[in-house]
Amino acid sequence: MKNQDELHKEGWIQYVALPPPCLDDNTADVDRLTSQLKRQLNAASIDMERSVMVSLPHVLRKSNFNVRCILFGYDHRYQLLDVQPSNKCLPVYGLAIDLGTTRVVFRLLDLCNHSKITETTIDNPQGEIAPDVLARIHYTDQPGGLEHLQKLIIDGINQQIQNICIANGIITDQIFCMSIAGNTCMTHLFLGFPPQAIIREPYIPVVNRHIILPPIDLGLIINPQGRVFVFPNIGSYFGGDLISGILALDMHHQTEISIMVDVGTNAEVVLGNKDWMIACAGAAGPALESGVSKIGMTAGPGAIERIKQDNQLFTWQTIDNKKPVGICGSGFIDLAAVLFQSGMLDIRGKFVPDQCQDRLLIIDDIMHFLVVPDDRSATGKDLTISQIDIDSLIRSKAAMYTILTTITQSVGIDLTDVSVFYVAGTFGAYIDPSSAITIGMIPDLPRSRYQSVGNTSIEGASRVLLSRKDIESVSDIQNHITYMELNVNQEFMNRFSAAKFIPHTDTKLFPSVKRPLIGSMYRSGEK
Amino acid sequence: MKNQDELHKEGWIQYVALPPPCLDDNTADVDRLTSQLKRQLNAASIDMERSVMVSLPHVLRKSNFNVRCILFGYDHRYQLLDVQPSNKCLPVYGLAIDLGTTRVVFRLLDLCNHSKITETTIDNPQGEIAPDVLARIHYTDQPGGLEHLQKLIIDGINQQIQNICIANGIITDQIFCMSIAGNTCMTHLFLGFPPQAIIREPYIPVVNRHIILPPIDLGLIINPQGRVFVFPNIGSYFGGDLISGILALDMHHQTEISIMVDVGTNAEVVLGNKDWMIACAGAAGPALESGVSKIGMTAGPGAIERIKQDNQLFTWQTIDNKKPVGICGSGFIDLAAVLFQSGMLDIRGKFVPDQCQDRLLIIDDIMHFLVVPDDRSATGKDLTISQIDIDSLIRSKAAMYTILTTITQSVGIDLTDVSVFYVAGTFGAYIDPSSAITIGMIPDLPRSRYQSVGNTSIEGASRVLLSRKDIESVSDIQNHITYMELNVNQEFMNRFSAAKFIPHTDTKLFPSVKRPLIGSMYRSGEK
Repeated sequence: MKNQDELHKEGWIQYVALPPPCLDDNTADVDRLTSQLKRQLNAASIDMERSVMVSLPHVLRKSNFNVRCILFGYDHRYQLLDVQPSNKCLPVYGLAIDLGTTRVVFRLLDLCNHSKITETTIDNPQGEIAPDVLARIHYTDQPGGLEHLQKLIIDGINQQIQNICIANGIITDQIFCMSIAGNTCMTHLFLGFPPQAIIREPYIPVVNRHIILPPIDLGLIINPQGRVFVFPNIGSYFGGDLISGILALDMHHQTEISIMVDVGTNAEVVLGNKDWMIACAGAAGPALESGVSKIGMTAGPGAIERIKQDNQLFTWQTIDNKKPVGICGSGFIDLAAVLFQSGMLDIRGKFVPDQCQDRLLIIDDIMHFLVVPDDRSATGKDLTISQIDIDSLIRSKAAMYTILTTITQSVGIDLTDVSVFYVAGTFGAYIDPSSAITIGMIPDLPRSRYQSVGNTSIEGASRVLLSRKDIESVSDIQNHITYMELNVNQEFMNRFSAAKFIPHTDTKLFPSVKRPLIGSMYRSGEK
Repeated sequence: MKNQDELHKEGWIQYVALPPPCLDDNTADVDRLTSQLKRQLNAASIDMERSVMVSLPHVLRKSNFNVRCILFGYDHRYQLLDVQPSNKCLPVYGLAIDLGTTRVVFRLLDLCNHSKITETTIDNPQGEIAPDVLARIHYTDQPGGLEHLQKLIIDGINQQIQNICIANGIITDQIFCMSIAGNTCMTHLFLGFPPQAIIREPYIPVVNRHIILPPIDLGLIINPQGRVFVFPNIGSYFGGDLISGILALDMHHQTEISIMVDVGTNAEVVLGNKDWMIACAGAAGPALESGVSKIGMTAGPGAIERIKQDNQLFTWQTIDNKKPVGICGSGFIDLAAVLFQSGMLDIRGKFVPDQCQDRLLIIDDIMHFLVVPDDRSATGKDLTISQIDIDSLIRSKAAMYTILTTITQSVGIDLTDVSVFYVAGTFGAYIDPSSAITIGMIPDLPRSRYQSVGNTSIEGASRVLLSRKDIESVSDIQNHITYMELNVNQEFMNRFSAAKFIPHTDTKLFPSVKRPLIGSMYRSGEK
């Protein structure tokens, strides 16, 4: 636990005791304060709005030149947001936001003692227009579309700020800074930037670099002298949420090579250490987020999130222990692993009727595997997974593995050289690495090297509000990363084809994956 | 005459031809443009408002990535104000303002070809509240006083901008930048900064440094993406108008030592060269601006601005050749010189009745010298100067000379070491150096060393709108100057007493001043 002095050393609140002016030292108020702050912070410049200057003479004289300064900034260029008498200090808050396509996470931080006050989540209100990135970008093609989407997210954020303030008994003026980490498209829509070029070759965002702007510029209701920090991106498919994640994981400070994978419809991967970093992103398909199968669903009450093999017994586990409604991504991966290991799926990912026995149903000429019979499901219907669903999962897992081998081979290292394998994102948090290894989605590393790290985006967004050092790291990270465009060439396709087997055509790559246990019984139960 | 290329090299308009993005070069639009601009301008940073970013993708693609950029900034940190297709260029204007206590001068500049479009002047509308600095500052003590004074000047400027735009057929959006050079108090009132501490020991302005701010922050109606540059000051009594003047005269680049004097109620003096600079300011009293004598007036139609001795004939010259109404500062100095040289004033500055003969009238027990008899004046009344008026002038000229000797002696040089003596200010423009030397107001240097330089403030304000190098010089100048507080101690008072003679007790200091020509006839005539 750091003490108050240490917190101030790295944070945005600075106590300043100035020598009062005299005939021999008649520097003006603003210059007197900023030159002292520049020394304290090792800053290149201290800017402030005119309104802060207007009130400065009174504040300095009322406080006998002992003041507390609230700052925010970047690249050693700081904005002085407010100056208060040292002996009369109100709380100072910062608001970190993880701006997801589906969900928006808010974390309120006390910038005085560096504590977390609350964390809340809302659905991204743009979801009412279109659920995914692509559809939202298309929506901006119509007149007023961009403005509408921007208004939805700004209004949604403002509403939630209100809710947070009311719930915690604070006023919006006490929130001095905000940080926003989101993917490139969500960030564009938030800023009102036309996002069309993001999805059209050659995939160009309006801006890569970070942006700091006054809240009023976006109509955000926090302290009007405050500042909003928007994370930079590396490109259309590697957004500020990932840079924020790298910051949260301190990958840029580590000597050992680590890899971070954000698993979703897009697989975003970054590999490296303090000396180098390489990133790429590729389509993994919706299977990993369970956007394909009929019974696929995002994690929610009644979703089968875990399927295990206990001796000969297969058991499932649902969220909130509700009767099963469907299956979410982590459950689907577990299922495929279990089916493979029980011999019910062959190495091509095809159902083996002899092994599946009466679990295999033919519906509309397509083989379906009965996961939960109608009498045990919440819907009163059979929950089944079709061969098509499995094929889709196989393609997704093959894409993921191919991306991982491509990025490591591009820098001449082997996947086994990776010391830590971070699985990020809310979905990633639920994946059982053993199952993912079994189906050959991720490399066969010792399980201890896998770390499920949850929402690193909100974590990194919080860190820039608490530490000057961390905000400076953002540009280091951004400048540090080489973005590798995934060329879907013959070599890539060869790798992809090889990865479409379970776990892989080259089984030497997956020594720990057990061969199918032909003859095990499929029995199900709730845990 | 510089050609277009050279103008662009030093100016605020930059033409940029960018390589269009491709898969191998997918830098975002903003970053693509700013990195090129940083190279072209050797800039540390290029910032822009969100609104500029929003329109950038369209402008870049419409122009095939050939654009013209309008920038403004300081300290190698530039603001990108607008981006336009290179082949579709509208005029770009800048507006320089000399913000005087009495008069406000506007100069509209074409930033494309660096030409002056127009120059106009208005009375400072704050004059309706109070004529001088001190009274305006006192006015801010009452509630709403500061806001009222600020509104008056902002409204006045906006009105004049409207007038200028209409007269020149341009729109306000084409004015992208403004520069403001004024004394410290006028600058404070313009910015809405409380000015009270300026006039109270230890005389502390709110701010010394320059300020760049968006026009909307002050309610100024030019292009809303534009910027307003406010000159810095060195202290309460050495304002941005003088820093602007130093810039205009290039004093900071010269090897030879020069001095600039702005003559008015306050005498502001700066002395130095490219290696060092020292400044001071002191009260000279209102006599030099003709604020004392009954017939004193500021320069205007009918003011006697020049009095000369042609052989035995004394002639006067009035502004616009109107019948005389009064006498302005330069005329008053001429008159004193002529009276002294004709023996009608003695070395103490007292009228010599024997020499003045019937020109000397006694009014209210005080001696008055008849300058213009009633039958030749525009008022139909005698225009006279009293002994009190002359005494006041003597004190003012003595103060001026004392300030000049004090500042030169403080750096161990002699007044004769000064290679160029700039007399600045609108009033200064009319002073005849010979007369000023005769009465001992300024040192007895070869006349060729005197240069009347007129309004250097508007000149310097214009230069920062035309040249990046010049705007960078502003901070060099500001950091360069040592401000010397004038200590009115015994030594100063001794010097002052010695200087209260005409031309001085030590006549060796004024070898060129002729002794009185006793017996010359005073005759007057219009020229």
